[in-house]
Amino acid sequence: MNLTDRLAQMNIILPAPAAAVGAYVPARRLGALIYVSGQLPLQNGKLLATGPVPQRCSLELAAQAARQCAINALAAAAVAAGGVDQLTGVLRVGVFVQCADGFSQQPTIANAASEFLVECFGPPGRHVRAAVGTNALPLDATVELEVIFVTT
Amino acid sequence: MNLTDRLAQMNIILPAPAAAVGAYVPARRLGALIYVSGQLPLQNGKLLATGPVPQRCSLELAAQAARQCAINALAAAAVAAGGVDQLTGVLRVGVFVQCADGFSQQPTIANAASEFLVECFGPPGRHVRAAVGTNALPLDATVELEVIFVTT
Amino acid sequence: MNLTDRLAQMNIILPAPAAAVGAYVPARRLGALIYVSGQLPLQNGKLLATGPVPQRCSLELAAQAARQCAINALAAAAVAAGGVDQLTGVLRVGVFVQCADGFSQQPTIANAASEFLVECFGPPGRHVRAAVGTNALPLDATVELEVIFVTT
Repeated sequence: MNLTDRLAQMNIILPAPAAAVGAYVPARRLGALIYVSGQLPLQNGKLLATGPVPQRCSLELAAQAARQCAINALAAAAVAAGGVDQLTGVLRVGVFVQCADGFSQQPTIANAASEFLVECFGPPGRHVRAAVGTNALPLDATVELEVIFVTT
Repeated sequence: MNLTDRLAQMNIILPAPAAAVGAYVPARRLGALIYVSGQLPLQNGKLLATGPVPQRCSLELAAQAARQCAINALAAAAVAAGGVDQLTGVLRVGVFVQCADGFSQQPTIANAASEFLVECFGPPGRHVRAAVGTNALPLDATVELEVIFVTT
Repeated sequence: MNLTDRLAQMNIILPAPAAAVGAYVPARRLGALIYVSGQLPLQNGKLLATGPVPQRCSLELAAQAARQCAINALAAAAVAAGGVDQLTGVLRVGVFVQCADGFSQQPTIANAASEFLVECFGPPGRHVRAAVGTNALPLDATVELEVIFVTT
C-alpha cells in the first residue's frame, strides 16, 4: 500500500504546506534525505497546545501535539520530495518539550510522534530519536519536532 | 560574484579561525557537507551578548549576536572547506536562545542569522531551521548556533 | 590496534545493547554514518547521575555521566554497524546538560564524552559538537548525549 492510501486509511489529511517565509524553508532535500524545519503543533492555523507541561498543558494534550507536529513534518517533506509517495522512511526525530524544571516524561510525549511515523511507513519508519525538555519554545508552543526523512 | 567578493561588499571580515582545542573541532567535512560546532557570539574575543532574553539581553542585541554566530560559523566552515569560496550553500541551522521561561520570540532572533546566510549565498543559502529556547548556555552566552554548510 | 583491543586496554566493557523498544531504535545506519539515539547515563540499569548541576549533581559526577553516555552510544552504534571494529570515527556529538538557570560550564562536562571518543578512535574521533543547557531531561537524567559515528 502506498503512503497516500495508508494516510487515507488512517483518516489523516495532510495540511496545505506552509509557504516558505523569509530566509528559511520548511524542508530541503539533500541526496536521499529530506531535512525538515522544526515543526510546531499547528492545526488549521492554531496551536493545538501551548505552555509548559504539566502546569498549562496535560501530558495527553502534549502527546497529541507531538503527533500533530509529525503530521506537519510529513506535509512539509512531501512537498520537498515531490509527493508524499516519494518518502520511504524516517532517519531521525528530535523532540523539544516545553516543561517544568525537572519534568521527566518527554519520551511519553515523543512516542506519539514516533508511533505515528511508524504507522505511516512500517519498519523503515523506525528512527533514532533525541527527546529533551526546554523552558521556552517559539509562539509558546508545547512541542517542537524536527525530522529527517528518507526518500527514494 | 564569489563569496569572497560578496563578503567584502557586505563589509564582513571573517574572524581568524578558532584553533581546535581538545577533543572537538570547529568544523568537519563529510562528503559534500561541512558540519560546524555550536558557535557562540564571540567578536574580537569577547561575547557580544550574555544572559537571558529579555531580562539581561534585549531582543535586538540577541539578534545581532545570532548574526555574529553565523559569521563565526562561516569562518569555521571556510577552513574545513579549503577556502570560503568552496562553500556553496546552507542545509540546516540550529539555534538555541538563552531566555526567560515561556519567552516565545526565538524566531525573530534566529532570523538575523538566517538572513545573513541567505545574503551570503543567495537562494542556495536557504536552509531548514530549528530554533528553541534554553535556560543556560556555555559561557552564559545568549545564543548558540549550529550550522551544516554545503560545499562543492 | 583495532577498537576491540583498544577498549580492552582502556578497561571499557560495552554494555549489552538496549533492546529496541517501541517506535524508535537505538541506532540506525545511513550510508557510511551510524546515527545514535539520545543516550542517558545508564550503568548496569541505573542512572549514574540525576537532577540539575550544580544543585543536585556535581560537575565531576556530570562529567562522569557524559562519559557513560558516550560508552552507551558506542555500544548502540556497534550493533548497527555489525561490530565495534566497523566504526572508524565520530562526526558529531550533541550534549544536553540538565542545569540551573544561567549555568555556564556545559563544555567541561561535554569534554569527558569528547575525550573518551578521541581516546577510542584517535584523530578520526575528533568531531563537531554542540553543548547546551536544559531545564529537564528524560528520567531526570543529568546528561543526554547524541552521536553520529562514521563507519567503513
